[in-house]
Formats: sequence, structure tokens, C-alpha cells
Amino acid sequence: MRLSNFYLPTLKETPGEAQIASHRFMLRSGMIRQQAAGIYAWLPLGMRVLTKIENIVREEQNRAGAVELLMPTIQPGSLWEESGRFDAYGPEMLRIKDRHGRDMLYGPTNEEMITEIVRASTKSYKQLPKMLYHIQWKFRDELRPRFGVMRGREFLMKDTYSFDASPEDARKSYLKMFAAYLRTFKRMGLETVPVKADPGPIGGDLTHEFVVLAENGESDVFLDKDLLGRTVPDASTDFSGDLEPVFKEWTSLYAGTDEVHDEAAWAEVPEDRKLSLRGIEVGHIFYFGTKYSEPMRARVQTADGKEVDMEMGSYGIGVSRLLGALIEAHHDDDGPKWPVSVAPFHVGLINLKPGDEAADQLCEKLEAAFEKAGVEVLYDDTSDRAGEKFARMDLCGLPHVVTVGPRGIKAGEVEWKNRGSGEKSGLPIEGAAEKIIAEVQNKLATLSA
Amino acid sequence: MRLSNFYLPTLKETPGEAQIASHRFMLRSGMIRQQAAGIYAWLPLGMRVLTKIENIVREEQNRAGAVELLMPTIQPGSLWEESGRFDAYGPEMLRIKDRHGRDMLYGPTNEEMITEIVRASTKSYKQLPKMLYHIQWKFRDELRPRFGVMRGREFLMKDTYSFDASPEDARKSYLKMFAAYLRTFKRMGLETVPVKADPGPIGGDLTHEFVVLAENGESDVFLDKDLLGRTVPDASTDFSGDLEPVFKEWTSLYAGTDEVHDEAAWAEVPEDRKLSLRGIEVGHIFYFGTKYSEPMRARVQTADGKEVDMEMGSYGIGVSRLLGALIEAHHDDDGPKWPVSVAPFHVGLINLKPGDEAADQLCEKLEAAFEKAGVEVLYDDTSDRAGEKFARMDLCGLPHVVTVGPRGIKAGEVEWKNRGSGEKSGLPIEGAAEKIIAEVQNKLATLSA
Repeated sequence: MRLSNFYLPTLKETPGEAQIASHRFMLRSGMIRQQAAGIYAWLPLGMRVLTKIENIVREEQNRAGAVELLMPTIQPGSLWEESGRFDAYGPEMLRIKDRHGRDMLYGPTNEEMITEIVRASTKSYKQLPKMLYHIQWKFRDELRPRFGVMRGREFLMKDTYSFDASPEDARKSYLKMFAAYLRTFKRMGLETVPVKADPGPIGGDLTHEFVVLAENGESDVFLDKDLLGRTVPDASTDFSGDLEPVFKEWTSLYAGTDEVHDEAAWAEVPEDRKLSLRGIEVGHIFYFGTKYSEPMRARVQTADGKEVDMEMGSYGIGVSRLLGALIEAHHDDDGPKWPVSVAPFHVGLINLKPGDEAADQLCEKLEAAFEKAGVEVLYDDTSDRAGEKFARMDLCGLPHVVTVGPRGIKAGEVEWKNRGSGEKSGLPIEGAAEKIIAEVQNKLATLSA
Repeated sequence: MRLSNFYLPTLKETPGEAQIASHRFMLRSGMIRQQAAGIYAWLPLGMRVLTKIENIVREEQNRAGAVELLMPTIQPGSLWEESGRFDAYGPEMLRIKDRHGRDMLYGPTNEEMITEIVRASTKSYKQLPKMLYHIQWKFRDELRPRFGVMRGREFLMKDTYSFDASPEDARKSYLKMFAAYLRTFKRMGLETVPVKADPGPIGGDLTHEFVVLAENGESDVFLDKDLLGRTVPDASTDFSGDLEPVFKEWTSLYAGTDEVHDEAAWAEVPEDRKLSLRGIEVGHIFYFGTKYSEPMRARVQTADGKEVDMEMGSYGIGVSRLLGALIEAHHDDDGPKWPVSVAPFHVGLINLKPGDEAADQLCEKLEAAFEKAGVEVLYDDTSDRAGEKFARMDLCGLPHVVTVGPRGIKAGEVEWKNRGSGEKSGLPIEGAAEKIIAEVQNKLATLSA
């Protein structure tokens, strides 16, 4: 992609409302533009990252055996009357009257709708288990939207719903999502820890939040340090097999949000392993049994002819929020440092002297080599000042930056900067593209392993 | 994909409200499920087709040089006051008050928002031309939603917006979209004709509808038969080059909607070339000059230092509506006949006797061969009756159906049915997968050429 054809409206000044790094950098690098409080347009640079995150989430859901559908954003109020939530939900639900005066709403979540869909077609335990998911925009009319995409009103969420004929089977579905979530975040280059969450009146121990540890997190978490860096299931994991060992590996040590903090258990964690910090919630999984299937009469016949309410769970990932969490986890003073799997482009290519024949030719050759290898390149072919170009690339946070100029060409070199480590080095022109392509491909392979 | 893992709630009976074939088949084959009048959930089979159509649209937009972003569904009313449309739009606009009582709306289209975005960053003619597009859900509160996804309330649309510094440049942008639309529909296996549309008070001749000729179309079109089957620009077309010849090829003969029907010009079309029929509008392109940029003060400085309003056009494709149009154009009494580029799966594989070791093994071998080649296969591994399996595959409309049974295996054959032509033949087991893979790949290559 040539920068001259792209649309990248970076900002020199930081808008006053941006209090945290991710919000600041997303506005400044032209990833998003606010349209109303908590409502953003995703400009091309932001859209590219959003799409990559969405695709990783999708691939790992498919791997775990979930099937994709897409529910609409607007829902009839009558559906929520079946579960009792139409009145109970509160002012965060965006309520709408259509032209006929019917009660509608912009879905903040989809338990009712998916239950209605599955109920209509599922009569026998033989049709179960089923795991269905969609990736769709949601709306929660937050009183005080803030922190950019971290707490917006219109946001993109992946929500999966599992349907089983027994609590034992429901646990298996839960473990699939538990393992899938570990893989999903790891593929994005994000270290997360599953921590026990509050099951509320439903009780039980099958609810976890996946949190990114970060200074600007909104929730307090307590955890045993030995949980950090544990093994994430690899790509060869059999999701139809026994996932109890994965669950055990990640839940046998103390980890909980402040809502469920257990002082007695916490006291048993050795002092030097106690970590009490802030976390950003990026995923939440919850087995809630028959909470919706019972009032909505979503039932199946079991092998012995009984009718039972389906056992359900729901599993959410904040897709748009993840951009904020990723930047909070990976940035310096100059901008984000995108992990290669979610970077808007893998490589930035700076031409220091557009119009110089040798520089133009070399840039075009490098660009073609990257594109041929499937390595995405943003080629700054503008006539802006060099300083402006370097600062803009840093602000965009592309993992690799290659700079081409007449002086380097004379010396037979291009400059290569690793945005993550900050290291710069001269690379011989011969083989430069191949070297960077290999770096990108190796890193991508490691992340998705 | 194994059918036992998929979610395919087909219906035996046709719901009473479905008047046309596409609506009927989409409900019956479990592609969609109605959630409210004109609001549908896209079940997995429908979602797969929707995604393929979306991706073809995206690829052709990118090829033409348009850049993708994503604007939110909810917009502030204040933005529409700038253009005067907040009051003018009428009851099809879904108006919403948020919890603070602010006027919001669910976007039926995005001219105002994209103008606001581009206005904020674009000050000089040097930053133009720009073509930006998004693929996003829209809402129009139709008085009488009908014909399934053909006239729904919540629908998926691709809308592109062009910004230029002069009418001459705006014409170039228009021609890019004109050519891109011809390619887009052709890739889906859909024959469309661009017909002159009504420019309203704006005037000019740069507005066209792309229509699919079909009995159940909603609009009347008049055209010279010699327009059918004209050449569609191929994949090597240079979109930054001169596209006037493409435009001329497709617009030099008579073609218009009834709103702009010109009896005098029509009288000059030879009688045996006069076609007056019904069409389904699947795309609409429109150069409207400064209609929004003027009231919204979206201006750039020209080379000679003047300030001018940007010249704009908008270009829409009804992505979700295309599923309906495709089925209207391609079906028989048993179901849709999906062109291979948009089929939910390329191949259906029927195991007539699951549990029979030879049948199971052959099916798994074929499934693996298809998947390895990137050919998508829906494998019916259920224990349903053979008749039910055949009818279901016909209803799904997959281009190729391969049937495996113990009797065929003894004869060294599988049965191969071409859903499009209805032809059936015995295929030697040895080489069967390769033959069908080649058919799929050749057809895909032809469509995308």
C-alpha cells in the first residue's frame, strides 16, 4: 500500500480527552475518530488491526468446533420479556421504538436470541452439543464512556453460546472455550491470565475472566505469580479430547478478581508469589446452566425420554477493546509496538528521497518482494520531511521499518529498524527483503504455533 | 465440515409469508431466521454465503483503489442537521434517544459522516482523490418489509464515497466504480446491466443502477438487447488508466429505469432489440457533486489557491440483498443453484451408509483430499434416510454433490451430480477427488478472471 493512496490522518496534538496511552495513540495515529461519546469510526489503519484481531478470534473459535452465524443488532423487546430482562436490564440498554411503536433494542448481548434460535430446531439430546458464535457490534449506553475503545458504547464483541444436554457435557464445552481463549490471546502476542470471576446467584466455579495485566486496568486482580508464563495449548491440541489437564494447569493456583477475593486462600500463597495488580478484562466465560433455557422453555429429550432444559454457557471476547489492551501492553513514548500478527502492516518502507531514480527503484523492488511473499508493506512515498516520516512510522507502530535513501544506496545498504526492540542496523541491499520476510514469517509462525 | 457438527436447521414446510423463491429457499435451507419484521439472523449456511459475497465486493473495491474503513451504525442527529437531512429523511430513519436524551439514529447511509471525517483532515487538492468505503449494517424502517433479505429493515451494504477536487477527476472516480461493479457482479456469477437512473434535482448523466434481470424484480427497466453479454473488464485492468472505453461499451446503447424512460430515444431502438422487463437493483452509483460538501463546508484549496467544495459521489452495493438476487437468478424447484464463487460449500459429500467401514473410509479420504486442496466440503455423516439427504443437498444448492455408498464402492465408483446442470454420472473412485477439485478450481478461476 502506498501512503499516497492510503488514508492516514495522523494528528500532531493529543486531543485533551485522551487520558491513557491507547486512547491517545489510536486518535493520534489516525486509527479511530470519535463520532459521538463512546462511538468511533474505524479509520483504515484501525480497521486493519480490528480485522486481524477478528480473524484470529474466528480461527480459534472454528478450531475449537464453534460454528459461526450472525445475529442482527436490532432485537425485538418481546424476546427479552421471555427472560424477564427487558425490564431488568437498566439504562445501559438502548431502547428504541420503531415506526409502528413496537419496542425494539440494540442488542447489548444475545443470550435470548440464540436461545430462541436453538430452541426452534433442537428437540433431542442427539442434536447436542452445539456451540455457536457471532462477531457483531453491540451497544451499551454507558453513563460515562471513556478510555476510547476500552469503554465505548458501540463495540465489537465475539460471543459464543454452548448448548448441552447435561452439566457434564456443558463442562466440556466450557473447557473448549477456556483453551481456545488461551490460544486466541497468545496468537495476538498478549499475555493473559484466567482469573476466577463472580458467578453471582448462579454460583459454581465455572466462570473466568481473562485479564491482561496493565497499569491502566480497570479491575483489581490477585494472583499467584507462578501462573505467569504457563503453557498455552498448541495448534495440534485435540479440542474433542480431554482438556481437563489444560484447565488444571491454569486454575490450580490462586487467581481471582476482587469480587471473589478469598482472604483465607490468599493467605496460603507464599508472600514472594503474591501479585496484586490491575487488569484489563478482554474475555469472560461463564457456565450459567438453565438461567435462560428454563424461562424460555428451551428443552431437549434425553436418552431415557425425559425432557430437560438445555445447559448453557456464554463466552465473550471484547474484539474492539482488545486494540486498547494491546496498546496498553505494548507501547513506548512514540507510539504502539504492534505484535506482528495484529500489526496494521508488517513493514513500513520509507523513501527518503522520492523522485531520486535509484531510491524509487529500490523502494519499488522491495515493495514488490514483500507483497509477493504476503508481507504487508506501507510504503511512504510522500515528499514529507524525513523527521516527519520517521515519527509517523513510530506512531503507526509497524514491527519493521526499512529506510531507503541515496546515501545508503551508495554504501550498498538500507536501514532496518526493529520497532519492538528499537534496534537499528544497516542491511546489505542484496538479500534485505529476504531477511525481513523471514523475520516476519518466523514470528508469525511462532505466535500461531 | 461435518454436518453433525454444523448447524443446519432446514424446514420441511414453507413458511406462509414467503412469496418469492429466494425468501422461501433461504428460510427452508436454514440460511436465515426471522427475528422481527425485516430483521433476520444469518444462520451458518447463510453466513457463509454472505461472507463470500462480502469478500468479493471487498477485493474488487481494493483493486479499484478504494480504501476500507468502518463507520459505526449509530450516528448523532446533530451531524444530519448539518446537511438538513435530519428533518427531511422521513419515517424510514430509525430515530433513537440515548440515556441523556440526545438525538441519535441508526445510519441508513453515511454521506454526512464520511464528509465529516474527510473534511477534518483534507485541506489541499494534493490530498485528493480519495475513495473510501465500508461494509456495514444499515437500518431503514420500511413500512412493509417483504421478500426476505430483498427488502429487509436491517441490511448489509457496501458504500463507497469519492472525493475529488474537480468534476473531471470525479468522473474518473465514477468510472472506477462503474468498472469495479461490472467485475464484482460477474465474479459472483451474476449477469447485471447498468441502466441510467434518476439523478433527481442534481441532474447530469452520472448515475446508474446495476440490475439483475429477473421476474420477481421490483423495478421496470427498458434496454437494448445488444447490451447483454458485453465484455466485463478483466483482472488485469488498470484502474488508474483510461476507463472511458469500458463506460462507452456499456452505455452507448439504450438502458434506463422507468423513472428516466425516454420515449423518443426508445423509439429509435430496433423493435427486435427492445427488452422491457423487471429488474432487481443490486448496485447504485451516483455522482452528486457538492450536495453534501457545500452545506457541510468540506473544502480544499486548489493549485491556484482557490477554495472549492469537494466533488463527491457515492456508490452502494446491497450485500445482503445480493443473496436474494442470486437465488432469483439461479434456482430450480428443489432449491438454489449457487455459483461456485459464492456457494456456502463447493462440494456436498453424502455417505449413504455411515457405520459401513468402506463407506466411512472413502468419505474421510475424499473429505481430506478436498480440504487439502482448499475445496470446501459439507460432509453429510448423519444417519438420516438417503432421500432426505439428497433433498437436503439440493435445497442447500452446493455446486457438486458426491454420493458414496457400499454398492458404488463395489463397482469402483462414486456418484457425481452437477447441481447446476442436474447431470449425474458415475466417477471411478481413483481420481474422483482430483476431477472435482479441478472442476471447482477452473470455474473459480473463470469467474475471477
